[in-house]
Amino acid sequence: MPELRRDPIFGRWVIIASERRGRPTDMKAETLPADDKSKCPFCAGRESQTPPEVMAYHPPGREADKPGWWLRVIPNKYPALDPAGKLKRRGVGMYDSMDGVGAHEVIIESPEHVRHIADMDDKRAEDIFWAYRDRMAAAKKDARLQYALIFKNYGRAAGATLSHPHSQLIALPMVPIRVKQEMDGAQSYYGYKERCVFCDVIHEEQRFAERIVGEDEHFIAIEPYASRSQFETWVLPKNHAGHFEKITEAEVKSLARLMKSVMGKLKRVLGDPPFNWMLHTTPLHEPETPSYHWHIEIMPKMAQVAGFEWGSGCYINPTPPELAAKLLNEA
Amino acid sequence: MPELRRDPIFGRWVIIASERRGRPTDMKAETLPADDKSKCPFCAGRESQTPPEVMAYHPPGREADKPGWWLRVIPNKYPALDPAGKLKRRGVGMYDSMDGVGAHEVIIESPEHVRHIADMDDKRAEDIFWAYRDRMAAAKKDARLQYALIFKNYGRAAGATLSHPHSQLIALPMVPIRVKQEMDGAQSYYGYKERCVFCDVIHEEQRFAERIVGEDEHFIAIEPYASRSQFETWVLPKNHAGHFEKITEAEVKSLARLMKSVMGKLKRVLGDPPFNWMLHTTPLHEPETPSYHWHIEIMPKMAQVAGFEWGSGCYINPTPPELAAKLLNEA
Repeated sequence: MPELRRDPIFGRWVIIASERRGRPTDMKAETLPADDKSKCPFCAGRESQTPPEVMAYHPPGREADKPGWWLRVIPNKYPALDPAGKLKRRGVGMYDSMDGVGAHEVIIESPEHVRHIADMDDKRAEDIFWAYRDRMAAAKKDARLQYALIFKNYGRAAGATLSHPHSQLIALPMVPIRVKQEMDGAQSYYGYKERCVFCDVIHEEQRFAERIVGEDEHFIAIEPYASRSQFETWVLPKNHAGHFEKITEAEVKSLARLMKSVMGKLKRVLGDPPFNWMLHTTPLHEPETPSYHWHIEIMPKMAQVAGFEWGSGCYINPTPPELAAKLLNEA
Repeated sequence: MPELRRDPIFGRWVIIASERRGRPTDMKAETLPADDKSKCPFCAGRESQTPPEVMAYHPPGREADKPGWWLRVIPNKYPALDPAGKLKRRGVGMYDSMDGVGAHEVIIESPEHVRHIADMDDKRAEDIFWAYRDRMAAAKKDARLQYALIFKNYGRAAGATLSHPHSQLIALPMVPIRVKQEMDGAQSYYGYKERCVFCDVIHEEQRFAERIVGEDEHFIAIEPYASRSQFETWVLPKNHAGHFEKITEAEVKSLARLMKSVMGKLKRVLGDPPFNWMLHTTPLHEPETPSYHWHIEIMPKMAQVAGFEWGSGCYINPTPPELAAKLLNEA
């Protein structure tokens, strides 16, 4: 008998249907296409092929847009939003419109074409999260912007057009609906329980001890109880924290090591799957609350979003998160 | 300058970014893979390769699970939910679970391997919507079920594993979150305006007259103002109606013709794109309301759902719906 499980934050039900593991298309992550390193515009030495950098980590004395950097942030060549202009809102008949003001940046995580965080050294992996913090702090200075979503697309099937390791930041003039719903759900739980739902999830997962795939002093990685996709993984700070950008040096070191470990497990079990990860944090100009807790959601691209998912907002997951955790921890 | 547009039902913003039409991956719908008709289990004559039928349209005298049918409904071979058993709900620590009770059916739309509705004759196309009505009416008899989602996946990239024309019905023991949010949004609009938001959209689109891609006495097809994807298309009854299953014979004829016409336009402009369509209607046991209006949402599969979409619930659409409507109407 399949099982329906309810996500405690959204109230979204997922169908855990182990019976469907027999389907020919399941459990087979697409492999990455071979990729032409010799033309990669993100590799060191080809800085002139990208828009001018907005930030870089490098040793003293290096010139902008020249080699020598460890990490480099550039505007997206095909930006979804435009940083210029005032934010104009207007009605269009019954509809609502505003100018597409915002930022769209690419964080090039490494000068070399090393593709996977599990294959990077610790320092390189730490720099990714420092860059996340620094670019979020930069977005915070712009009063027009309300939210900065940082995410990573890895592999063509997960939406990446280049395989060089990179993340993206899209800063928006509104709080996106998914974050709003998540914060509303957490607030509603808090109103009922007077506890943070994410803190409760962490304690509950420590008690169950069957869905944890990584843990240290500062962070925990779990396969969520109501995982939307096979091997969905969340990484959360163990102490309640609303703003990612207040992360400490010790926490960055810990997060980098844990992400390397967890992503390495996913790579070994699923064979270098395409994936997305998304950082959810409190909106730029909102204060810390006792109900909302920043976290990273990792979604290996294991199946299509098709008619059922579009139409229902529910997901069918053929691998129970307990089994996913067991497979990852054995790897 | 890109434009942000707000969906009047969900409050979801989308980014209309015509600037991104230059991206190499845009506007290129994946073509369908060649497909081995000689082994298709849905073709007439191979009835023994599927589970026994639960319903079929056929001339008098035909035996069950033998050829001669025009349309045939079978249980899904890999069901996401199980029709047997009582619906048990239980708490699991802080979490909520229930048995995966429900139905998962496949509606085989034609005995022949004609793949596209635009290539079917009128009678065959009408039968699809009669079958939707009949299976929804059947689901309504089961008090354990709260919602029957009917949807269609066409093409591998849209989640179809077989290319023979078929739709699916998944009947759920809860109202799925996407429908709940849509009904809540419509109810909130009604609370403010005392009008159905879908009826208002229809009138507004008739007034603007730049996003309509099909219309007759009973139905209208539009590219929604805040389309999530390129060439997203909605088909709505022009007279307010909450329950799809109350559709009349004249309306079925009209709907079939309009769907053939609209899907034919999409096929001509985009080159037989993979797509999903989803039927949204009032939950099985809920009465008609003045705020909710059934409709079909058609989503050609034009881009990946990637990190930004997962993380934000927003969508980036490089083709404004006015342009999409113009291209469709010129085809």
